[in-house]
Amino acid sequence: MSTSSSLHTWFEVKTDSDFSIYNLPFGIYSDAQVKHHVCSAIGDSIIDLFELESADVFDLNRTVFDKNYLNDFIELGKPITHKVRLKLQELLCNANSILKTNANLSKAVFKKQSDVTLLMPIKIGDYTDFYSSIDHATNVGTMFRDPANALLPNWKHLPVGYHGRASSICVSGHSFHRPKGQQKPADAELPVFGPCKLLDFELETAFIIGKSTNMGDTLSTAQADEHIFGMVLFNDWSARDIQTWEYVPLGPFLAKNFASTISPWVVTLEALEPFHVKGYEQHPVLLPYLHYSGEKNIDINLQVAIQPLGAMPSVVCTSNYKYMYYTMEQQLAHHTVNGCNINVGDMMASGTISGPQPNAYGSMLELSWKGTKPLTLADGSERRFINDGDTVIMTGYCERDGKRVGFGSCAATVLPAK
Amino acid sequence: MSTSSSLHTWFEVKTDSDFSIYNLPFGIYSDAQVKHHVCSAIGDSIIDLFELESADVFDLNRTVFDKNYLNDFIELGKPITHKVRLKLQELLCNANSILKTNANLSKAVFKKQSDVTLLMPIKIGDYTDFYSSIDHATNVGTMFRDPANALLPNWKHLPVGYHGRASSICVSGHSFHRPKGQQKPADAELPVFGPCKLLDFELETAFIIGKSTNMGDTLSTAQADEHIFGMVLFNDWSARDIQTWEYVPLGPFLAKNFASTISPWVVTLEALEPFHVKGYEQHPVLLPYLHYSGEKNIDINLQVAIQPLGAMPSVVCTSNYKYMYYTMEQQLAHHTVNGCNINVGDMMASGTISGPQPNAYGSMLELSWKGTKPLTLADGSERRFINDGDTVIMTGYCERDGKRVGFGSCAATVLPAK
Repeated sequence: MSTSSSLHTWFEVKTDSDFSIYNLPFGIYSDAQVKHHVCSAIGDSIIDLFELESADVFDLNRTVFDKNYLNDFIELGKPITHKVRLKLQELLCNANSILKTNANLSKAVFKKQSDVTLLMPIKIGDYTDFYSSIDHATNVGTMFRDPANALLPNWKHLPVGYHGRASSICVSGHSFHRPKGQQKPADAELPVFGPCKLLDFELETAFIIGKSTNMGDTLSTAQADEHIFGMVLFNDWSARDIQTWEYVPLGPFLAKNFASTISPWVVTLEALEPFHVKGYEQHPVLLPYLHYSGEKNIDINLQVAIQPLGAMPSVVCTSNYKYMYYTMEQQLAHHTVNGCNINVGDMMASGTISGPQPNAYGSMLELSWKGTKPLTLADGSERRFINDGDTVIMTGYCERDGKRVGFGSCAATVLPAK
Repeated sequence: MSTSSSLHTWFEVKTDSDFSIYNLPFGIYSDAQVKHHVCSAIGDSIIDLFELESADVFDLNRTVFDKNYLNDFIELGKPITHKVRLKLQELLCNANSILKTNANLSKAVFKKQSDVTLLMPIKIGDYTDFYSSIDHATNVGTMFRDPANALLPNWKHLPVGYHGRASSICVSGHSFHRPKGQQKPADAELPVFGPCKLLDFELETAFIIGKSTNMGDTLSTAQADEHIFGMVLFNDWSARDIQTWEYVPLGPFLAKNFASTISPWVVTLEALEPFHVKGYEQHPVLLPYLHYSGEKNIDINLQVAIQPLGAMPSVVCTSNYKYMYYTMEQQLAHHTVNGCNINVGDMMASGTISGPQPNAYGSMLELSWKGTKPLTLADGSERRFINDGDTVIMTGYCERDGKRVGFGSCAATVLPAK
């Protein structure tokens, strides 16, 4: 059974559900009975894989599904995890499968997503953030440097990246206090200390390493997919005023490491396969280790909404992962070309994903053009950056030939500074 | 019993040993019998704490000493780990202690350091590198920017730091292949790919977080010590040609993440207490959250030697941790001022520690002044940067009033590019 053929599940799934039979992502959930089980999703439900394995459907040691993170499951390797996903598809399509016919099993396995808590799915080792959207890099370069030479000299030769903080990456649904820190107002002689005034989101995705390497190993672009387990949505919260003052010469630090947010479902690379598209032309020609073949960009519709406290959400950005200049495979080949080792659970984010149209800009910095063009939300309020009480909600999905594969949502709320 | 009083141990310790009765650092070792035990050091020996706890001297669950990392031991908290260290001092000073009188116990507990393998002591969570030596920052600014304005505007207002890669931090004794990557020769139009030509060491120390915080928490400089378990020597290997091309605007990435080296012994903050000294004057006055009281710099003599393959080592740098402009307490207060959470096992490095004298510069970049002043080693060979086959050996120790507390050595060997 493959994701390219047409599948029909006996489970009720709405046509606009992110969690069709073609998706079957992985996550970790808890509820009053369960501390932490590995699960998948179908329609409005989760599928408890620990309970399902009580029927021995996967031939695995069941304890791998009784964990607080997916890492041990992912460590089993793609040949196994892929088989688990295909087996799930089979059980959900075959109307005579044990999952359909055994009422007790079915009752233990399926729970409404709204009745459970989705937990942080991954114990993240190292976290890397790239800067691979050409529209984003061009916007930032135009705003802060020279519109005629917006891209720095290295940008079109390598996927610029930097290391970030793993400890403060949280799963969707959390809240955090507006960060405080040093800022240097343009007209001030000395820096001042206080709550960040220019709090921003960054619309990103991130991929999760599914297979480790040893120090000294390098991965080609062709080998990269074997080492990528899947993807999540990623909000790289940023304090622009702190960033401006601190980031020269060693990069962003306190402007980014106070909080990041990911979506709870890890969508596998296999589920995303049918949505591959061609990317931007890459000129000048890259060094050979960055060449790749085939269509490796992915058509993922991305959206950002701001929901003020007590109000409805307003969509402020409609972008797409296909606007990335560098692919994940190029990012990973670059990351390992010097022999840097990677581990299962490492997370590598895309960088802000902006598209060419102004409504596809992936940050308030770009959407409000440095605060010069405020956005008006549905409740009539204006936003140059993010206010206290705002919830920022990112969503993403692929759709083609009636098949839909989505990420659910990635949301977090800003509390006032402590 | 305190470290400020004079102690006499019945165990034979040479006067120039790094591992006097005043030190008692913590590490992890293995040998033919032992897979991984927590240990301490005295003179030329290690002290197996798992074996020692068979006599119930610490009143702890013995399994905490049967681990592949110190993290669980450190998690017990300073009140406990400090008591363990004091108990060890007592057992090693009291000639009637069970460790002296019970020959079987003694035989199981003491092993020659040269007969065991010291393992990576810490499972590192997040790794941060600071840039806190004013002499180093001034040298770099003078070489690459403007001698008249060598320090960037933010440097004297905050301890500049950035996130680094934890996965490739190894314990002393390893070797690694010279990294490959993109470089952009000054006279070339396009970047080229190949082995790094300007491989460098950076003489640093690093401190290890001993107590976690929650997101949103901040630590004052006065609270910081409670969260710092101890220190190690740190070699932040750097590929200068890769760095120059990649690091604008988001900081060093592949130029640093191919390998770092730490010393195997974690020297506790308590053992370093008697060696505190006053630091540089800090002007202009810092923002209040960075103020601190007392003498918080530490007089740690640091040395770097280069040992070519088959030759004797030559000392190329003699520096001191006391030359740091910012203290560890300031670094940690800064790191958490935005609410960034820290975890037990996080590692935070000092940045290259250069002193004011040219022989105290902590990197080849500075020692050879960008390659313009080659150093001559004992074997007659010249070095501008590090050659294949070279072993770089860092050592460090404190000494005052006949009391010596040292780190042992931090060494690694460069293999040719793969």
